[in-house]
Amino acid sequence: MTARLENLKQALRTFGLDSIALNPGPSLTYLTGLCFHLSERPVVVIFTPDKPPVIVLPELEMLKVAGSPFQAFPYPENPAEWDGVFRKAVQSLGLDGKRIGVEPRALRLLEFRQVKNGAREAEFPDASRLVSSLRIKKDAGEIAAMRKAVKVAQSALEAILPLIKIGMTEKELAAELTVQLLRHGSQPEMPFSPILSTGPNSANPHASPSERKLQPGDLLVIDWGATVDGYISDLTRTFAVGEVDAEYRKIHQIVQEANAAGRAAARPGVQCAEVDKAAREVIEKAGYGQYFTHRTGHGIGMESHEDPYMRGDNEQLLEPGMAFTVEPGIYLPGRNGVRIEDNVVITEDGAECLSSLERNLIVV
Amino acid sequence: MTARLENLKQALRTFGLDSIALNPGPSLTYLTGLCFHLSERPVVVIFTPDKPPVIVLPELEMLKVAGSPFQAFPYPENPAEWDGVFRKAVQSLGLDGKRIGVEPRALRLLEFRQVKNGAREAEFPDASRLVSSLRIKKDAGEIAAMRKAVKVAQSALEAILPLIKIGMTEKELAAELTVQLLRHGSQPEMPFSPILSTGPNSANPHASPSERKLQPGDLLVIDWGATVDGYISDLTRTFAVGEVDAEYRKIHQIVQEANAAGRAAARPGVQCAEVDKAAREVIEKAGYGQYFTHRTGHGIGMESHEDPYMRGDNEQLLEPGMAFTVEPGIYLPGRNGVRIEDNVVITEDGAECLSSLERNLIVV
Repeated sequence: MTARLENLKQALRTFGLDSIALNPGPSLTYLTGLCFHLSERPVVVIFTPDKPPVIVLPELEMLKVAGSPFQAFPYPENPAEWDGVFRKAVQSLGLDGKRIGVEPRALRLLEFRQVKNGAREAEFPDASRLVSSLRIKKDAGEIAAMRKAVKVAQSALEAILPLIKIGMTEKELAAELTVQLLRHGSQPEMPFSPILSTGPNSANPHASPSERKLQPGDLLVIDWGATVDGYISDLTRTFAVGEVDAEYRKIHQIVQEANAAGRAAARPGVQCAEVDKAAREVIEKAGYGQYFTHRTGHGIGMESHEDPYMRGDNEQLLEPGMAFTVEPGIYLPGRNGVRIEDNVVITEDGAECLSSLERNLIVV
Repeated sequence: MTARLENLKQALRTFGLDSIALNPGPSLTYLTGLCFHLSERPVVVIFTPDKPPVIVLPELEMLKVAGSPFQAFPYPENPAEWDGVFRKAVQSLGLDGKRIGVEPRALRLLEFRQVKNGAREAEFPDASRLVSSLRIKKDAGEIAAMRKAVKVAQSALEAILPLIKIGMTEKELAAELTVQLLRHGSQPEMPFSPILSTGPNSANPHASPSERKLQPGDLLVIDWGATVDGYISDLTRTFAVGEVDAEYRKIHQIVQEANAAGRAAARPGVQCAEVDKAAREVIEKAGYGQYFTHRTGHGIGMESHEDPYMRGDNEQLLEPGMAFTVEPGIYLPGRNGVRIEDNVVITEDGAECLSSLERNLIVV
């Protein structure tokens, strides 16, 4: 924690910020180890380069910061008293007129307005890049946790494969997969609820499991992940329910090649865009470019979507320690879809694929 | 959905708002049935009294609004293009200089700044009360879902009681409870991860399950809930691990009486503060007032914390259909804690307790 806070202080200077205000979430946990639920009771931590971090929190959470270096400003249950406590806390850092960085993707108006009340003339620039610069390159401990999260996810999937039967609903199968993820060691806070989609639903990349029953001839897309030691995995495999249409076998083969091409393009010094392009070209050349409707991948770590993003417009260079998904897909609207997703970490001289589950089309 | 949108339009007039802007979450789902994950891709729906709702969303989510009455503004994967799409969407409603209500507890700066870019001179008043006025009184369908969620939670707990053994860790027991919640029919999106806390950890009302092993003489607090049809339950029971200190039996008895007093005070026309007071008085009279460090309860429904809150300062009157927890506790710092929590719905002439699990101290 101390090293990470030192890096933060350095980054504040580099990015020209006087301070950064964080609410509960992965960035706060990364920097401090603190975990709070996002609730109706606002919690804010404000970091500056030269003073102890200030935390505003409910009195009944004070045990969490006992013995920590924080300057704590606890508030009682009555919301009428919160404004005053927040104002005092923010003012104690003398931030009015200063530059207080924020994470727009995480900070709610609930917390933002409280900070602003204590520093009315402050600016609140987007500090997402600063936070990303700290979190984007995973250290050995973080990679070890992701490796475990991949292993748990793979074992859980292997445990449900023999249970898949015609007539089961997507929801039933999703519940069973969730059970197996827990049994195999995932924390209950999973990166996302497993996506199990069949037939026409599989043509929607973001489908939720429904009451639709598995039918012969369906493709079955399973997109799932586990959380271990606070780090996640995020995998996808596509199965054939009995015999499927020849075109579905064909698009599966194309996506499998696109996945391999995306992984092969990943190495230090390469733009994220190149990974996207490598996978996309395979699909475009096969004539299905218009059916690959999303980016090729996203960063993973404490969150299931974080920097770096594998998008055609992203010129960010890959560096050792960066971890992300490679997940091309082809979605034929109203018919069926295919996605194959692996988890990759950039190494000193290439990339390591953390996931190893069979990618060939398996008939279930 | 149509009736709920009509109620919203009426409420906008009552609360003097020209519009309300919502991001993904329970309020949006309540009004429209739409479910989106909160992610790095902002989704906003803007409602006005006289035009179709406007939704800004990623192109790859368009299937979700196919055939709906929304005016959809989809944006592509490249974030550089999002600002323009948002600005066009907000400007299409002519909201500059108008009053656009927001939910500070839900709306992130990510979405807020996009809306503001399209209506720079607009005001953004807190519309939490408006949203609450729509959601706070549950209809028969919503109460039926909560009844099921209580039933699932109770069955899951009964399934793990025989498995509890000295030497198990809090985490192991929590994982088993999560598995049983799924097996008994909870949706994977649970209201919160079960809290299992023992010994000194049980004296922290918001503890997370740890590697601590169950020891003879511990109190064991289990706080858990299920989700069914999008509605939640939230229960707590406290157990004795073998023989426990006489004082722990005593505080359990006091909390049990406080829980009963809180439930007995709940009926239409009574202030929320009265429910808090009824429970708190029992604990104060027994000399443990300083160890009951939180409010007596919170509303439940689609969220595990929502209006109405059972706090000593809350003069809000209870009305039929309001649903909430009654959960007094006594926490002896560094030693042990007790909490007993039930779920109550206000009826026409009193209150119905949805939960029925044994409240006497059970030795496990």
